[in-house]
Amino acid sequence: MASLRSWFSIPRGSHFSLANIPFGVISTASSKSPRVAVAIGDHALDLEVFAANNGFSGLSTIQPHQAVFSQSSLNAFAALGRPIHSVVRKYIQGVFSVDTTYPDVLKNNVALQKQALIPLKEIKAHLPFRIGDYTDFFAGMNHAYNCGVIFRGPQNALQPNYKHLPVGYHGRASSVVPSGTPIRRPNGQILLDPTAEKKVPAFSPCKKLDIELELGAFVCGSNEQGVPIPIEKAEENLFGVVLMNDWSARDIQAWEYVPLGPFNAKNFGTTISTWVVLADALEQFKTKGLDNDSEVLPYLKEKSEKSVYDINLQVDVKTASGNTTTISKVNARNLLWSFPQMLTHHTITGCPFQPGDLLGSGTISGNSPAEYGSFLEQSNNGKESIALEGGEERTFLEDGDEITIRGVCGSDEEALVGFGECIGRIEPALKLNFA
Amino acid sequence: MASLRSWFSIPRGSHFSLANIPFGVISTASSKSPRVAVAIGDHALDLEVFAANNGFSGLSTIQPHQAVFSQSSLNAFAALGRPIHSVVRKYIQGVFSVDTTYPDVLKNNVALQKQALIPLKEIKAHLPFRIGDYTDFFAGMNHAYNCGVIFRGPQNALQPNYKHLPVGYHGRASSVVPSGTPIRRPNGQILLDPTAEKKVPAFSPCKKLDIELELGAFVCGSNEQGVPIPIEKAEENLFGVVLMNDWSARDIQAWEYVPLGPFNAKNFGTTISTWVVLADALEQFKTKGLDNDSEVLPYLKEKSEKSVYDINLQVDVKTASGNTTTISKVNARNLLWSFPQMLTHHTITGCPFQPGDLLGSGTISGNSPAEYGSFLEQSNNGKESIALEGGEERTFLEDGDEITIRGVCGSDEEALVGFGECIGRIEPALKLNFA
Repeated sequence: MASLRSWFSIPRGSHFSLANIPFGVISTASSKSPRVAVAIGDHALDLEVFAANNGFSGLSTIQPHQAVFSQSSLNAFAALGRPIHSVVRKYIQGVFSVDTTYPDVLKNNVALQKQALIPLKEIKAHLPFRIGDYTDFFAGMNHAYNCGVIFRGPQNALQPNYKHLPVGYHGRASSVVPSGTPIRRPNGQILLDPTAEKKVPAFSPCKKLDIELELGAFVCGSNEQGVPIPIEKAEENLFGVVLMNDWSARDIQAWEYVPLGPFNAKNFGTTISTWVVLADALEQFKTKGLDNDSEVLPYLKEKSEKSVYDINLQVDVKTASGNTTTISKVNARNLLWSFPQMLTHHTITGCPFQPGDLLGSGTISGNSPAEYGSFLEQSNNGKESIALEGGEERTFLEDGDEITIRGVCGSDEEALVGFGECIGRIEPALKLNFA
Repeated sequence: MASLRSWFSIPRGSHFSLANIPFGVISTASSKSPRVAVAIGDHALDLEVFAANNGFSGLSTIQPHQAVFSQSSLNAFAALGRPIHSVVRKYIQGVFSVDTTYPDVLKNNVALQKQALIPLKEIKAHLPFRIGDYTDFFAGMNHAYNCGVIFRGPQNALQPNYKHLPVGYHGRASSVVPSGTPIRRPNGQILLDPTAEKKVPAFSPCKKLDIELELGAFVCGSNEQGVPIPIEKAEENLFGVVLMNDWSARDIQAWEYVPLGPFNAKNFGTTISTWVVLADALEQFKTKGLDNDSEVLPYLKEKSEKSVYDINLQVDVKTASGNTTTISKVNARNLLWSFPQMLTHHTITGCPFQPGDLLGSGTISGNSPAEYGSFLEQSNNGKESIALEGGEERTFLEDGDEITIRGVCGSDEEALVGFGECIGRIEPALKLNFA
């Protein structure tokens, strides 16, 4: 294997070291057509330009498929399958390696460097996939327990099914947006006094607007309707992982969700980070998830215990007055179910998948308030204030608050595998007039 | 307006009279590329061929857009908007009218008749839309009440929110299939003894496989994320209506659905009829839905009380032994919420829609068992047998059972506006080996 030191300048501490090579879709002011790229240090390598200039001359496998890099989404590239993703990533690592065996491709080709390597500051990062279907799971057991305690008390915190199957619900694919997209506070029906005997809703801007700290996994495979993906094949159907903020309207949800689950409380926006870290890049950071003390049915049993990821996650809130506070730090291993288990369970009835479908992990929380991945948990459903820098306080999100999620694997500052940022700022609710 | 009698032979009692003109996507053995068509009597008019042979010479409005008829879905045609759908339908009615003002387009053009008019027996009808997102509502109040009685008793049958908002959940777009597609009985987790204190699921083929008699509405408009579609604009964003069978695994649902709603119980298949009846064609059959004795919030108030459709629906089951029984006859007016109300509620938080998105009505049931739209209700959750022809009985679906839903508006046998058929046959569950 080529060295992961590079002839190209990659800043120390970059999320996009040579150990990473995440994929995304970019455009620039001078070239507005979205196309495929990888991130390296502070730059994007435009793979459409790279391919068109013999960048892949050392990798015959990809040559018949180079048109995938001119697409406006990763769907076609993803559909080529994990073995192709793997060789493309390794080849790009090789091209950038200090001891590259392809020096003429890029290292000695200053013209192509100028054309294909674009500072990240100058690019627009788009939604990486055309998402067919999006499903959100609830695999963060600490979060599920904490919410259960808030709404039902500690005795019945986890439902009887929780440790037997990855609980999930179908989300709204059209509402998934790339990092940086503003999120408008939703209007909807809420109970102004949930304790009143007579339940009469009011029309109101959401008063309990929240985040959910999650991971998202993009699927690269497909299955015929009626035919499940067995657990031993699930992993090869996963393309890669992003950070996700599943914005949630807790008061709308509390009123609407019986008996068919969350709906409008979840469909106004879900933000994802724009660089998809390949499953291959995460392989070395696999670890054991939360213990399951129930016997799991055979179709969900994995060969290896190490099936979730050791990713250090962090949530920052920046208020309108400019103060920034880190409100949560938690490791992504806090999941009871892995993405392969989610995918296998999702297809066990025969539900069909296509490349570009998205799975959300559910909110990731640890055991202490400083590790909770939602304001609902941190504020005990609005009962306790969360202290921010500059003497500010929050129970839920206020207009102008900007949330940034970061995630990174590893501790070697020259070989980090990071996700970049997942950012969204809250805009005031629309004033709607029903005169 | 041109006469709705035709020079072309349309069988008496046809669902596809000149008053209808439903749109679909077809292919044939000799021309396998899916393209847009309308149904007329026992024939499909291939609009790609029709357009290519000056069929639209009398309608200048559509000429710049004729490429939409060569698409493999109705998405592009739908996106042109209701005024265009309306003039295209009226023009086609005019072309087929006995006193057509465009006799040379088709009436006197035998060559084009031979080329563009294809017997329905010879065509394959495809999924009419590329469905971005699919949402299933629960607006059939009798069904909601009946299910509530079964699971919670008559006192708490309807949840407090039921009469204040159209309850719904996000469905799985990838699982929607056209009429005629076989449906494989799903495997999944069920409780063999739901009354046992200790809840331990078994892996099993679904033992309570059911139908849900519904209507589906396709959306033709779109809205910017964060900006709702107000109720007075909702109607113009609806393209047309199909029959829908939302196959349901009741035992899988009972175990999985707490607290996030139905998931695998619903994502293995939803069947729709293939000819989409335009909202324009249904205009004359608008009627009043079920009374709502709660005060509805202003954003959901419609100008007209007549906002659901007077459609006579029928469900037949044909068993493996060949016996056919009509098990339900019910009118589609049995809804508490209209499609415009569903769309407005769905977008009130800012959820974005695109042409081709699908809304399901929820199961339509009347007040008596012969009007119930599911086996769950007809068999009182398996406690009572449903008598079929030939001495057979059912509580839920057995392998080999074929369900046919039909729907038709009007009683004039020469001017019916019908939906054709929505058919699905149950195949045995896959035998899965987890050795």
